[in-house]
Amino acid sequence: MFKVITISRQFGSGGRTIGKELAQKLNIPCFDKEILEKVADSSGFAKEYIESHGEYADHRTWLGRAFGTPSRFDGMTNQDKIWVEQRKIILELAEAPCVIVGRCADYILKNRQDVLNVFIHADDKFRAERIVNLYGEKPEKPEKRLKDKDKRRSAYYKNYTETEWGIASNYHIALDSGKLGIDKCVELLTFVYKSN
Amino acid sequence: MFKVITISRQFGSGGRTIGKELAQKLNIPCFDKEILEKVADSSGFAKEYIESHGEYADHRTWLGRAFGTPSRFDGMTNQDKIWVEQRKIILELAEAPCVIVGRCADYILKNRQDVLNVFIHADDKFRAERIVNLYGEKPEKPEKRLKDKDKRRSAYYKNYTETEWGIASNYHIALDSGKLGIDKCVELLTFVYKSN
Repeated sequence: MFKVITISRQFGSGGRTIGKELAQKLNIPCFDKEILEKVADSSGFAKEYIESHGEYADHRTWLGRAFGTPSRFDGMTNQDKIWVEQRKIILELAEAPCVIVGRCADYILKNRQDVLNVFIHADDKFRAERIVNLYGEKPEKPEKRLKDKDKRRSAYYKNYTETEWGIASNYHIALDSGKLGIDKCVELLTFVYKSN
Repeated sequence: MFKVITISRQFGSGGRTIGKELAQKLNIPCFDKEILEKVADSSGFAKEYIESHGEYADHRTWLGRAFGTPSRFDGMTNQDKIWVEQRKIILELAEAPCVIVGRCADYILKNRQDVLNVFIHADDKFRAERIVNLYGEKPEKPEKRLKDKDKRRSAYYKNYTETEWGIASNYHIALDSGKLGIDKCVELLTFVYKSN
């Protein structure tokens, strides 16, 4: 019997929308940006700061990793402090049935038998169109935004979990939302959650 | 509307069983070892030889890749000849609705819009138990057999497709057969195939 669903997702793939709609169908809460608020409340960091440091590798971590130098030579970074706080909040939220989007929740809950780990992805064309529709035109090309966001999510994930992001065998179910459609993904996941 | 399903799978994950049962439910043929026979007929190579060279990197390819030396310095290897023949047969089979297990069919058919690419995986414990039950005890440990088979499948895949095996975004749907159960995987895939 599954209790909690975690959704990891490529940027622009509709993973968050799928999480929200799935939670609505299952009549359980979905935590995504709500986690930011909780981390802000308990840590004192600003919401905007957490948003850009709670799921994306910051420049130093990223460069540090790329050049093989330690990224935390001076003790805990702000990002580490956010990780610790965010982890604590995710563990608390997962006590009751819910959907949790992003933030390495799959890794944080990996020893739990009642957690279904989902990965949502789609091809660049689908995602580029989607982010332009959702977030509007920006000075940089949508393909560049996708690449940058995914790279930083992947680096963040690797930094804190020491495993690779987006490897099929790390998830119980991985779906191409571009090919299958967002509604079908919601339907499939509802079926899996309900029938176990 | 999907016409063809390709199933890539970790060794021992039950991907072949899922393919067979899925095909039966959909009333379409499933091609797995049948492909070996067709390749044997048209190429003249022995079935056993094709079995060990049609999906697994042979020692030379594998070492060649590991040490960065060309694996085909003397022209087409037997493995290359099998690849060419196998590719031709897969393209022919995919003209009609069917399930195709393994043999890089996902890559061979990647430009087709009506092909659903599936990846089946499971944790080592589930797979080790399964291969002992299916293929019996062998002198080497089941974990070692899994690791070796996956490594050679992955190297074969990379050699001919120049992409990584087992990356979630390369498949439309990836399922953990150990977590979800083989029957549930068949049910999910039947649903996806029928509802598109």
